[in-house]
Amino acid sequence: MTTPKFITFEGIDGSGKSTQSRLFADHLRAQGHDVILTREPGGSPGAEEIRQLVLTGDPDRWSAETEILLFTAARRDHLEKTIQPALAAGKIVICDRFADSTRVYQGATRGDLRTMVDSLHVLMIGREPDLTFIIDMDPATALERGLARKSGEDRFEDFGLGFQETLRHGFLALAHAHPNRCVLVDGNRTPEQIASEIAAHL
Amino acid sequence: MTTPKFITFEGIDGSGKSTQSRLFADHLRAQGHDVILTREPGGSPGAEEIRQLVLTGDPDRWSAETEILLFTAARRDHLEKTIQPALAAGKIVICDRFADSTRVYQGATRGDLRTMVDSLHVLMIGREPDLTFIIDMDPATALERGLARKSGEDRFEDFGLGFQETLRHGFLALAHAHPNRCVLVDGNRTPEQIASEIAAHL
Repeated sequence: MTTPKFITFEGIDGSGKSTQSRLFADHLRAQGHDVILTREPGGSPGAEEIRQLVLTGDPDRWSAETEILLFTAARRDHLEKTIQPALAAGKIVICDRFADSTRVYQGATRGDLRTMVDSLHVLMIGREPDLTFIIDMDPATALERGLARKSGEDRFEDFGLGFQETLRHGFLALAHAHPNRCVLVDGNRTPEQIASEIAAHL
Repeated sequence: MTTPKFITFEGIDGSGKSTQSRLFADHLRAQGHDVILTREPGGSPGAEEIRQLVLTGDPDRWSAETEILLFTAARRDHLEKTIQPALAAGKIVICDRFADSTRVYQGATRGDLRTMVDSLHVLMIGREPDLTFIIDMDPATALERGLARKSGEDRFEDFGLGFQETLRHGFLALAHAHPNRCVLVDGNRTPEQIASEIAAHL
């Protein structure tokens, strides 16, 4: 296979995605690669402003449909301003969340939204990652971690444990549906053990 | 025909749309109708916040594609939170700009965007007005008026007269393409004359 250039990390909140994205970027840089580490929602100045609109305030501030449109707008800006220029310059792009998060989070909110998310992705985004690490872990532990951070962006954590469990199953289904680009990683271990398994994939 | 309940006003900036929307709302209220007057982008608290993102800052802050997504997100919120509840309560809704503005403004920016705007509308909005007044006027006069307002939202006016002329032709084409719901109104007259012609349509 050709070396993957656009690599994403996915999983429920508190699963260790952000830590593993950072450790993997450090690992690739130590090997001499030119790497940019980015995240969604956000990842470009315009997308960060949209991120603030989506992640703060009441959990029912936006309908699921409006939220999908805002996430897609942020993703389009992120793709144009950050991801595509970096890939064009020959860099490796590591991204903490991408379209799979929208598929799973919105699909978990209401099953019929998944078709809408997929249609919008085809129409306005088009691009899939070359490689996706899905970090799987116990939702109760992950939720505890996520809430402990008190980031002020607890919009989804506020929906509770049942929702986190639905999300977990959504990510597992995605990993099974796209075995060519998705790698499922057991997140119930130390960060060093997980990072070592991820590093072994390249 | 059944009485139109969802009525929009369209035209280039400075064409007198907002004045005519207000005068028509006053006229219908004087006849005893329950009317709400709203506008786009904006028209609901969430949509107003998105409006601020879109209309302020550098003209090239957002790509045309991202802008379309943001306008569609604002429209979805406006439709859900303001327009649909008012229609369901039996009110007449008068709206200063709606989907036709996005079709014309984005189509004028780049011809190939029109298909994208229409696909997004079908996927995420679906609803068309029952009646649309398109106010047509000389772009040079309209531009002068629009700039004289110094609203701090001169994002589109900044593109200049050539762009305003393209917009005018876009609105004329739309009026001709949808004769059943669109009424073309000559805006090169006094506000009272224009209001009187519009009032005569119901």
